[in-house]
Amino acid sequence: MKINSIDYLVRPGKKVKLDKWPTAIKPVYKSKDEYKKLLGEHIDELRSLQNLLYAYNKYSVLLIFQSMDAAGKDGSIKHVMSGINPQGCQVFSFKHPSTEELEHDFLWREIRCLPERGKIGIFNRSHYEEVLIARVHPEILDSEGLWDESNKKMVWQDRYRSIIDLESHLHRNGTRIIKFFLHISKEEQRKRFLKRIDDQKKSWKFSTADVEERKYWKQYMKAYEDCLEATSLADSPWYVIPADDKENAHLIISQIILDMLNKLKMMYPKPDAKRKQELKKIRKLLSDEA
Amino acid sequence: MKINSIDYLVRPGKKVKLDKWPTAIKPVYKSKDEYKKLLGEHIDELRSLQNLLYAYNKYSVLLIFQSMDAAGKDGSIKHVMSGINPQGCQVFSFKHPSTEELEHDFLWREIRCLPERGKIGIFNRSHYEEVLIARVHPEILDSEGLWDESNKKMVWQDRYRSIIDLESHLHRNGTRIIKFFLHISKEEQRKRFLKRIDDQKKSWKFSTADVEERKYWKQYMKAYEDCLEATSLADSPWYVIPADDKENAHLIISQIILDMLNKLKMMYPKPDAKRKQELKKIRKLLSDEA
Repeated sequence: MKINSIDYLVRPGKKVKLDKWPTAIKPVYKSKDEYKKLLGEHIDELRSLQNLLYAYNKYSVLLIFQSMDAAGKDGSIKHVMSGINPQGCQVFSFKHPSTEELEHDFLWREIRCLPERGKIGIFNRSHYEEVLIARVHPEILDSEGLWDESNKKMVWQDRYRSIIDLESHLHRNGTRIIKFFLHISKEEQRKRFLKRIDDQKKSWKFSTADVEERKYWKQYMKAYEDCLEATSLADSPWYVIPADDKENAHLIISQIILDMLNKLKMMYPKPDAKRKQELKKIRKLLSDEA
Repeated sequence: MKINSIDYLVRPGKKVKLDKWPTAIKPVYKSKDEYKKLLGEHIDELRSLQNLLYAYNKYSVLLIFQSMDAAGKDGSIKHVMSGINPQGCQVFSFKHPSTEELEHDFLWREIRCLPERGKIGIFNRSHYEEVLIARVHPEILDSEGLWDESNKKMVWQDRYRSIIDLESHLHRNGTRIIKFFLHISKEEQRKRFLKRIDDQKKSWKFSTADVEERKYWKQYMKAYEDCLEATSLADSPWYVIPADDKENAHLIISQIILDMLNKLKMMYPKPDAKRKQELKKIRKLLSDEA
């Protein structure tokens, strides 16, 4: 089955109702073997485009992953991006901000981690938490110092504006951005949490607080809807990935990245006359040695 | 053929004569297929140890790659470390220092890039350039501001001391360091350079200066010898990798990393009584929902 990136695109300016976006769809693969084969092909192509991105040296790529807990952010990064050259790829996981970070504006810490030209940067969570978790738990704003009651009303609109302006600026300067919302059902999260308890490799990083956050599921969905609506731009779009089936999500995510990279029409630098002359001189230097 | 890490180890305090260290040895694999199989096995093991390193959260790992041009630093990082999770791995390539970096001590920029606990950091070139290229071309010291004729004499010993002290400090604080010198022959470098000229994917990053540096081969070998002798410590050893055969080098490097990681005797955190109670509570919370 062919994957069409556009099926998962949040079109700029459109209303978003997440219960209209499926968390499960008919998988694009027929068997585990076919999944492995398809993902392998995607990764091979990704690897060669990554080389080209580095050689072409005009663009950087920023991939942002957001979701509820256990929706597969870590797994997607692991399975889609393992196999590419770690030298050209930087992953940042944003957790509780440090005291120093809280003393700065809410975009400061992410800006410091932006990918350099020729590289792929991955944000596992991001500045979007500042309009998601902070919206569901607005008491977080108090630790950010700036807010009083009068400007709390405008804070979300103001933050969308700041995010949009930053991402537009980045796009004008060569950064190509894709934002993934991994969309799982509340029931699927419950199943995954239950599995985690029994998995010794995973249970250690699991806390009651993670489970208690489920109480706010509706509020989170509302925060995501408003955020996706406000910040899906032609130049830095959001994609909503049905994520109840992890493997299927990996294939869709990798296809969307490939489509974006292929659209950039990158080429290896071609030597001009002067450069050809230089290479000729180098060849002579080396040949004369023998 | 079994790989013994220790065969490639520079024993602390021993004299190093690089012409006694082979650049080519009998390969540890019999065919390309066997190479692929062995490397695949190494990478699988590396991947699971990387997970454990993260979960155990006591150690970080720093891998330093140094060599003459075209000895295979980039290739080793690509082939050995592709396949592990980029989320737990950070690669830094150190090139010409920036003006800001030159205004600091010679270890400053590397210290800022050290891996955090649970992660693998890779330095493609490093602070060792400061006792290698800077030694072959001591005029570089002038751009570092500090030096006058009287302290130039002591500069290399002083720098070794600073490096040793830093690495000992890091070891005491949980960073496990391995340093690889990829050892190729001057003739093998010549062959690889000639190949690069004809490879459109590589020729663009190749310059006459790279070739001209071959004039200083002997001086570089001398600088490496002194450096390896002075800075191979029990707690942050140098390994000299015969690198004329790239595939063979990948197998040796990955085996050395595996041996070091396995020696750490890491375990997944085991839940204590209190933690078991918490997990039980979480399970009940989730089960009651259904």
